[in-house]
Amino acid sequence: MNILLTGCAGFIGSNFIDNLLSRNNKIIGIDNLSTGNIGFLSNSLKDKNFQLHQNDLLDFNYIKPLFKNIDIVYHFAANADVRFGLNHPKKDLEQNTIATFNVLEAMRANDVNKIVFSSTGSVYGEAKEIPTPEHASFPIQTSLYGASKVACESLIQAYCEGYDMQSWIFRFVSILGPRYSHGHIFDFYKKLKNDSKNLHVLGNGNQKKSYLHINDCIEAVLLAQKYSNDKVNIFNLGVNDFCEVNDSIAWICEELGINPKLIYSGGDRGWVGDNPFIFLDTKKILSTGWKPKYSIKDGVLDTLSYIKNNEWILNRDE
Amino acid sequence: MNILLTGCAGFIGSNFIDNLLSRNNKIIGIDNLSTGNIGFLSNSLKDKNFQLHQNDLLDFNYIKPLFKNIDIVYHFAANADVRFGLNHPKKDLEQNTIATFNVLEAMRANDVNKIVFSSTGSVYGEAKEIPTPEHASFPIQTSLYGASKVACESLIQAYCEGYDMQSWIFRFVSILGPRYSHGHIFDFYKKLKNDSKNLHVLGNGNQKKSYLHINDCIEAVLLAQKYSNDKVNIFNLGVNDFCEVNDSIAWICEELGINPKLIYSGGDRGWVGDNPFIFLDTKKILSTGWKPKYSIKDGVLDTLSYIKNNEWILNRDE
Repeated sequence: MNILLTGCAGFIGSNFIDNLLSRNNKIIGIDNLSTGNIGFLSNSLKDKNFQLHQNDLLDFNYIKPLFKNIDIVYHFAANADVRFGLNHPKKDLEQNTIATFNVLEAMRANDVNKIVFSSTGSVYGEAKEIPTPEHASFPIQTSLYGASKVACESLIQAYCEGYDMQSWIFRFVSILGPRYSHGHIFDFYKKLKNDSKNLHVLGNGNQKKSYLHINDCIEAVLLAQKYSNDKVNIFNLGVNDFCEVNDSIAWICEELGINPKLIYSGGDRGWVGDNPFIFLDTKKILSTGWKPKYSIKDGVLDTLSYIKNNEWILNRDE
Repeated sequence: MNILLTGCAGFIGSNFIDNLLSRNNKIIGIDNLSTGNIGFLSNSLKDKNFQLHQNDLLDFNYIKPLFKNIDIVYHFAANADVRFGLNHPKKDLEQNTIATFNVLEAMRANDVNKIVFSSTGSVYGEAKEIPTPEHASFPIQTSLYGASKVACESLIQAYCEGYDMQSWIFRFVSILGPRYSHGHIFDFYKKLKNDSKNLHVLGNGNQKKSYLHINDCIEAVLLAQKYSNDKVNIFNLGVNDFCEVNDSIAWICEELGINPKLIYSGGDRGWVGDNPFIFLDTKKILSTGWKPKYSIKDGVLDTLSYIKNNEWILNRDE
């Protein structure tokens, strides 16, 4: 298949690239490298079936012709800086909402009609129903990131209805695994490398989190396309389990053989708009026969192991 | 109070202007006059408490200083061309989503923290639950208009959470009354004026619609602000009743004393993305003590009467 994948140099995008290339697809990748990492593509770039365009999705005239003869679009590009969204609200609007609009317009201009989209469990805001199913109550948004992802989902749905497209929208919990280079494991490892005796933790450490390993995520996304063929297909992606930030800290410290003093900033959430508990009902994706292979602990340790063996990613300018 | 009202020359905006001026408010109105009608402001423009800025909300540098010392924003400006949204998808993105972003940014820059927003029952897509309550299931969007309004609502909610603002979001059914100058009554009157013997009707005429009179709408919006003081206050606005397009045609024809042949285009909806039935659960707004004074038939006939007495609006370039 001819695939166009946006955000190809990101954590999620680059892992998909590896997997999709191994299945004999031809891939055009787009990434503006604002948070993506060209190092994640070092192998793929050697593959003649992969073509990288280092470009921004806001540059519509540049990206439009790239969609010619594409069978399916994996749209993973996004402003992934959830935590500091309030410092630069325009980023979510531009890199998420408007970028998604441009992707859809480029698809429409080239008669491409299938799109896979990475949304987020954050779209449920502070869900009343936990675990939260796909058909939960109409949510109230609590973050600019969640708000922009709802805007993207809604646009995609309206394009499916209006222009006869088909979409697979995945609401991810946090994804872990090789190349995961932001979030708490990355932050903690970086801090502990500088000072293994003290660890500053945002919130009270009791924030509950549900994590999915990137390999399980990829399997789910591919399987869902096979077994769900509606106009708009929406799936929660996560594991049927959760941990507290404190659990994760304990696994990390045990693995590193250290015992730092934990200094909590306090409060029940890490930052304004941080959701204290995203835990998704995954019955729908489980009904496709998919089953995650990694436990949350496996995921945390696999991520840690990747970071330990690839300390170059610690130097990213965030 | 110092009020800033966007879309002030529109059907809804201009009626609010009249009402709010009669309550001794000072109002800055903004309208790009793309669909608004300066004629609707002929009285208000004589009032020294009203100041009109004929400008587009996309011109952020122009609008930003207008928000200085404003107590509350009524954000009614929108691309109201629901039906032909598919012909120009960028309009909803720009005039609804991005314009709303600019309004919120202008508020933030000027420490304005209250906003009233006109959303739509279209955000429920094809609701499974009818009448549809505010907490209905997470919807799937079926129109670009609905999608953009969800994007706006979500942005407003995230700004409320992140920047300590307060919002009243109203999901309107179709609103009727003086100055209503699009939609079926307007279209039918125009057609019947040219040819009173034949009337072409989109769909099969059985499309169910719920209409609210603008006067009832204004009362509800003002009352809701008084009795609902959450960070984000969401209300359906409509009447506890509905009619079919055919009912409305019968009332109009009776009033005009004509009996045209009805020619239906067929199908259960007027156009792609037209929702065959928007009927909102209004228990929440009714709990504030608000009660609509106009029946749907009253609203249709009052609108008809306005059009008959103001035929100049028929010449609008749509």
